[in-house]
Amino acid sequence: MGAILGWDVGGANIKAARIEDGRAEPLMCERPLPLWREPHRLPSVLAETAASLGGAETMAVTMTAELADCFATKREGVAAVLDAFTSAFPAIEPWVYGTDGRFRPAAVARQQPFRVAAANWMASATVVSRLFPDALLVDVGSTTADIIPIVGGRVVARGKTDPARLRSGELIYTGALRTPVCAVVRSVRLRGRRCRVAAEQFANLGDVHLWRGDIVASGYTCETPDGRGRTRLEAGARLARMVCADLEMIDALEISDIADHVARAQVEQIVAGLRQVMRRLGGRCPRVMVVAGQGAFIARAAGQAAGLDIQDLSDAIGAAAARAVPAAAVAYLLDAMLTPA
Amino acid sequence: MGAILGWDVGGANIKAARIEDGRAEPLMCERPLPLWREPHRLPSVLAETAASLGGAETMAVTMTAELADCFATKREGVAAVLDAFTSAFPAIEPWVYGTDGRFRPAAVARQQPFRVAAANWMASATVVSRLFPDALLVDVGSTTADIIPIVGGRVVARGKTDPARLRSGELIYTGALRTPVCAVVRSVRLRGRRCRVAAEQFANLGDVHLWRGDIVASGYTCETPDGRGRTRLEAGARLARMVCADLEMIDALEISDIADHVARAQVEQIVAGLRQVMRRLGGRCPRVMVVAGQGAFIARAAGQAAGLDIQDLSDAIGAAAARAVPAAAVAYLLDAMLTPA
Repeated sequence: MGAILGWDVGGANIKAARIEDGRAEPLMCERPLPLWREPHRLPSVLAETAASLGGAETMAVTMTAELADCFATKREGVAAVLDAFTSAFPAIEPWVYGTDGRFRPAAVARQQPFRVAAANWMASATVVSRLFPDALLVDVGSTTADIIPIVGGRVVARGKTDPARLRSGELIYTGALRTPVCAVVRSVRLRGRRCRVAAEQFANLGDVHLWRGDIVASGYTCETPDGRGRTRLEAGARLARMVCADLEMIDALEISDIADHVARAQVEQIVAGLRQVMRRLGGRCPRVMVVAGQGAFIARAAGQAAGLDIQDLSDAIGAAAARAVPAAAVAYLLDAMLTPA
Repeated sequence: MGAILGWDVGGANIKAARIEDGRAEPLMCERPLPLWREPHRLPSVLAETAASLGGAETMAVTMTAELADCFATKREGVAAVLDAFTSAFPAIEPWVYGTDGRFRPAAVARQQPFRVAAANWMASATVVSRLFPDALLVDVGSTTADIIPIVGGRVVARGKTDPARLRSGELIYTGALRTPVCAVVRSVRLRGRRCRVAAEQFANLGDVHLWRGDIVASGYTCETPDGRGRTRLEAGARLARMVCADLEMIDALEISDIADHVARAQVEQIVAGLRQVMRRLGGRCPRVMVVAGQGAFIARAAGQAAGLDIQDLSDAIGAAAARAVPAAAVAYLLDAMLTPA
């Protein structure tokens, strides 16, 4: 069998993994694409991404892009993503992964939008379950965090759809880059007193983590809120604006107070989800937490706060694959399905 | 003396009021302008707005637009706004209002960015203090809410700058239209259980209030988050997306639960600011609350929750002026300054 391309088509990023017989680690490629604004670019970005990895005749797809608000419904979003694959790769019918842990051809997937929407966490957890049969997988991406319990080698997530997962604590809509600061905190500490923040997307968590040194400029792969650059100073100016100030009004120490406050609050968001999942599992809850994603450092801090033993998925599958687990996961899973036992 | 144009130049809306000798109520004009994206359009929007009101040789300006993130600093923002006036009206030097309650010519205002930035609340409160010498003025606009205490005919605000006012409870960054839902709530009720919300600008408070019938489509004057229309159904679809759902997954009753939850949380934001201001004033705190702005209905609900006696500013100065108080207020204040005693 030839190469397989695994795709995780998100609303803000396109991630692809290419595996070939005998290669333990996939080749990875990631491209930012603000789909809600430029849905028409999806076919060309898919084609370019595939070409940059060397292409493949067999493709495995998972997506969350159907949630982007350029699509009126998930049904429309799923159809549009699959249309983009047809347009980019007319000769290939991709296999689409679902929350039931199965692949179906694209033609069938179109009829099952609620099953193939937002199934990427299931692909990741299924692959991780073979390496860590008892673990909480915490994958913090640019935008969202998944907390998936694996017990006795089985994925025991309570929620299957996004709304159900937002209720169960298994999906926390917070991430390392795109999350608006105003979605994480209502107020910060400023000069020793509580200060409300602006309800504007003046700064995001990428600015917080860049300011604190937890990411570097090249890791700030999404657009900046104000269209300015990715230097620490520019991130600081954006953070100052969250309290309606600027760098003439507040200084670097005060910016650090703001950034630290927001970073702590974000870790608390993950901890709250972790505790909800742990409470539900009770005595059978794993004590091991496997961290992955661009925001693995956030997952790690949450796991430490919750008293879990941290394992880094990148030690098991390589840094590139651990950064974009679902893309690599669907490639591995399809390979396993298509390879004769 | 001839006519006076009063301007409130915001980051999302340009509001103007024209008064003439003997006219009790000003002519008003309001134009949406997403300044952060289209700063170059400011001069033409100013010129068109002035023309639509019949023009004037004398102009009073207050602004909050300097906070828009197309400007690196407030200093740059103040200068850019004043440049736009020069460009639109080359023969006129506008008078610029400051948080010190005084006007200065534009050339002087450029040297005092921190004094003329975000002084619009002071203009409103000064005018209202002559009608209601003991009151809490609560002006809820499209984006922010001001809570300004007036005691014995004097404006006794604690904060002068935006950051100080965010600390004192006198500026609550929540409004009737532009506020992202994810900046007001972390979770909502869905099917009787707490459900986290997406940290995306999928829906804003305009959608909440449109869905609930507190505003009509023509009052939804800002852009919609997804660029779709202003029907109740389209607002409902945006609200569904806040829990990562769509109108195929949840029904109208569930949307109403979401909208009601967010509306209540927004009222609580204002109540919290009110209580902070009332606590500080102690025994001398007025029991009368004067409501104004596009979000006067929100202010009213907060005042009722706080047990205050509500007065509607529109009964005193007319509906149009009460909707855009600062623009009318700077016109009145400049008229008073320039009219011989």
